[in-house]
Amino acid sequence: MNTFADPIRRARQVAPSKVALIDGAKTFTYRELFERCARVGNSLARFGLEPGDRVAILAPNCHHFVETYIGVPAAGFVVVPLNVRHTQPELEYALRDSGTRILLTDRDPAPFRDCVEHVIGLGADYESLLASAMRITVGEGVFENDLAGLFYTGGTTGAAKGVMLSHRNLIANASHWMAAVHQRPDDRWLIIAPLFHAAGSLQILPSVWTGATQVMLRSFDPAAALDLIEKHHITGTLGVPTMIAALAEEQLARPRRAGSLRLIGHGGSPIASEVVRRTHAAFPNAELVEVYGATELSPLVTVLSGEQHLVDTPRIQSCGQPLPGVDVRTRSEDGRETPGGEVGEVVVKGPNVMQGYWNKPEQTAAALRADGYWSGDLGYFDEEGYLFLVDRSKDMIVTGGENVYSTEVEEVLYQHSAVLEAAVFGIPDDTWGEAVHAVVVAREGHEAIDPQTIIEFCRERIADYKVPKSVDFRSEPLPKSGPGKVLKRDLRAPFWKDQDRGVH
Amino acid sequence: MNTFADPIRRARQVAPSKVALIDGAKTFTYRELFERCARVGNSLARFGLEPGDRVAILAPNCHHFVETYIGVPAAGFVVVPLNVRHTQPELEYALRDSGTRILLTDRDPAPFRDCVEHVIGLGADYESLLASAMRITVGEGVFENDLAGLFYTGGTTGAAKGVMLSHRNLIANASHWMAAVHQRPDDRWLIIAPLFHAAGSLQILPSVWTGATQVMLRSFDPAAALDLIEKHHITGTLGVPTMIAALAEEQLARPRRAGSLRLIGHGGSPIASEVVRRTHAAFPNAELVEVYGATELSPLVTVLSGEQHLVDTPRIQSCGQPLPGVDVRTRSEDGRETPGGEVGEVVVKGPNVMQGYWNKPEQTAAALRADGYWSGDLGYFDEEGYLFLVDRSKDMIVTGGENVYSTEVEEVLYQHSAVLEAAVFGIPDDTWGEAVHAVVVAREGHEAIDPQTIIEFCRERIADYKVPKSVDFRSEPLPKSGPGKVLKRDLRAPFWKDQDRGVH
Repeated sequence: MNTFADPIRRARQVAPSKVALIDGAKTFTYRELFERCARVGNSLARFGLEPGDRVAILAPNCHHFVETYIGVPAAGFVVVPLNVRHTQPELEYALRDSGTRILLTDRDPAPFRDCVEHVIGLGADYESLLASAMRITVGEGVFENDLAGLFYTGGTTGAAKGVMLSHRNLIANASHWMAAVHQRPDDRWLIIAPLFHAAGSLQILPSVWTGATQVMLRSFDPAAALDLIEKHHITGTLGVPTMIAALAEEQLARPRRAGSLRLIGHGGSPIASEVVRRTHAAFPNAELVEVYGATELSPLVTVLSGEQHLVDTPRIQSCGQPLPGVDVRTRSEDGRETPGGEVGEVVVKGPNVMQGYWNKPEQTAAALRADGYWSGDLGYFDEEGYLFLVDRSKDMIVTGGENVYSTEVEEVLYQHSAVLEAAVFGIPDDTWGEAVHAVVVAREGHEAIDPQTIIEFCRERIADYKVPKSVDFRSEPLPKSGPGKVLKRDLRAPFWKDQDRGVH
Repeated sequence: MNTFADPIRRARQVAPSKVALIDGAKTFTYRELFERCARVGNSLARFGLEPGDRVAILAPNCHHFVETYIGVPAAGFVVVPLNVRHTQPELEYALRDSGTRILLTDRDPAPFRDCVEHVIGLGADYESLLASAMRITVGEGVFENDLAGLFYTGGTTGAAKGVMLSHRNLIANASHWMAAVHQRPDDRWLIIAPLFHAAGSLQILPSVWTGATQVMLRSFDPAAALDLIEKHHITGTLGVPTMIAALAEEQLARPRRAGSLRLIGHGGSPIASEVVRRTHAAFPNAELVEVYGATELSPLVTVLSGEQHLVDTPRIQSCGQPLPGVDVRTRSEDGRETPGGEVGEVVVKGPNVMQGYWNKPEQTAAALRADGYWSGDLGYFDEEGYLFLVDRSKDMIVTGGENVYSTEVEEVLYQHSAVLEAAVFGIPDDTWGEAVHAVVVAREGHEAIDPQTIIEFCRERIADYKVPKSVDFRSEPLPKSGPGKVLKRDLRAPFWKDQDRGVH
């Protein structure tokens, strides 16, 4: 059966001299990439790692990331991609929770020395590590149901969970994506989304498997992206809607030769129809494709193909149809399948469904039930299997493609001495899809507190993207249900009443 | 995980009103096809079938075949597609060997009443069976590693083996093929190869999974095929080289509007460069794709894409590169991987490798070894993973896409009282790829026997395509190795010396 070793082994077999990866001035053929992936994995074994041990990577998009992402699982270890936007406490939490033994990073190693056994810098350290490998093989003793990666979703607290994805999970997702967008050996993909995100790493295995070329963009910048699209005759890219919008605006303002671009994918949050329209105007040769998924699903669930043709139809609000291989249904709380048109929770089965949450048996049991993975998203199907998301049953905000758990932000707010009650939710935002918004009831005697103080307080404790963009103060208590649960939907509703679409 | 229930369930979800299947004057939407597949499976349960019980289908290409092929495994039973060209003894062997309990057929049921519990005619019987179904569900209690089908390869004797393919095997092959030829929802496939063959049935699951349309051609006829291509704007078809050649000749002689045709696939035996050239001339819009595989591999192993561009290059002799998902190596007898350019036996690993031969543990153990399935084919890879087949280590002839085991034909020859010694092998043939040829040494006193007598004798005992097309008589004994094994290669060599390519 297939493991991470198979795509890279096939690429070396069928395209050894072809350019696999371009990272700035550096270029690697598939023969070289194979060797470097094999060397990363095999050289790590020298530190006494056992099969299944965790190895983390904290870096912007770069060839080291791709080599680690492939090479660590292909050697039987588990890769832990860390979010570069996380604060030190958040990173430490993920490292300790996962029991990571080795961290590869381009950052100062000092702050991490307490959490892991070895920190390896992505420069000379990394190259001498590779040079030390005794063998250049991949996949020996690795099986499809072995864990390949732990992907952290959420933040510093109980809300942060390590999503366990096996080789088979990620390989299945790769094959679903290959079929969905007709991957070709002559494709050249520009990686604009961060590789620690599914939207970035999603493309790695399919590109390698087909023997296509990947070009790294270290951190997103629309002008730099377009320069690379022109220079390398890029055929496809995948990002969050804010990136796609920025690409379109840059191209409309300062056009490059971008006619090679045949596919622009986006996901992670809803896209405005106007962005689709302008993106199509900017890149008329490209098919626009929306994807919907979740880290727990490796990540793809549905695909909306040919989105540029749907702008003036109701289906522009849909996140598309289930991919062949992914069983998607909407179910009521009692497990009954809801018929077409009736809202239910999105429940997914298939070889792409995660193994569980690392060391979190209760949360695993709550998510992985008899009928599959209960996504927490609410939606309905139309008569041709187009899925329309209407709400999230889990208390999560998606802002600029990042997931923010309300409870985590609320916990931080409650730490402030002036805060009596707090509720956090997402409100519509043209740039971010949703923006994090807080409603706060101040304690008696602290009524003079201002939003900026609250925001600064949060900024010291959680990643920037989780910090509320706006804070409203209320003098009366928050509305609550009988059992005392805050009725967040009542607070949220006024912000969303003029929106014509649900959340993605 | 995925079973045969998933493609048809997804098709009903995303394309309920779309035409799934056209069979002469009959047309079925996916809603209807789903229901008919579900009904076949559920109604058979009324005969007391247990999960895993075998149900055979003996019919030309027709909607009943497709319904049975999907519906029987989707209900937890095992489908046994029978070769319509087999003789009665050959069919009986497969029915008895497989322990088939129910046979669905358009033929006279009388001769089969002794071998199976029930024979159901594909007319009124079949329709009332469907009407009797109590439930209309698929896939309940069916798991991916359950057996989905038993596919008989070989003939009446020990050489005939039931290849055990699981749901996962055939689903994996479907996803490999979907990615390889970029299957699309708006594709319309014409089924020209017999559905009991991999070249015919290969297209069923991918078509259904993408929600595409399939058009049945009951039995191959090039003019009828082209009429259907024009009428239904067919986009793709798959056949053996003799069929493709006939299509090209018909189109060149009496052109139809065939511009919709974007893909012509072929496999099962080698194709002459001249056929590729003329097929491209006849269908300039179509990509020509050669596939190589084996029933034991569900069946696809390699694909040669864009064959029309390779006509004047060495790679026209290749059968292509390994599909993503299929691990293909060449190995020497001791299991060592042979380096590029060096001939070895083709050994395959992947989710598409069969479970074994039905009730044949020794033959299973010989074929399924530590490194995967040992195909019996000899070949080498070039520097970009193109596989070139040079010979078959198993004593098999491929003629018009059918496999003939020499030993089976030799056993029949030895039954004739005039035959002292016999050797059977394939010789080059423009129409059939290989033609079955026999060399016979007559017994003393029977020297007057003529080829026609031998051929007639065979025709009464084995399927037409296995009967020698030519017979040579020798007066001296057959050449033998030290241990007395006939040196068939010495007999074979003079016929092949002017051929510029190996066997596929």
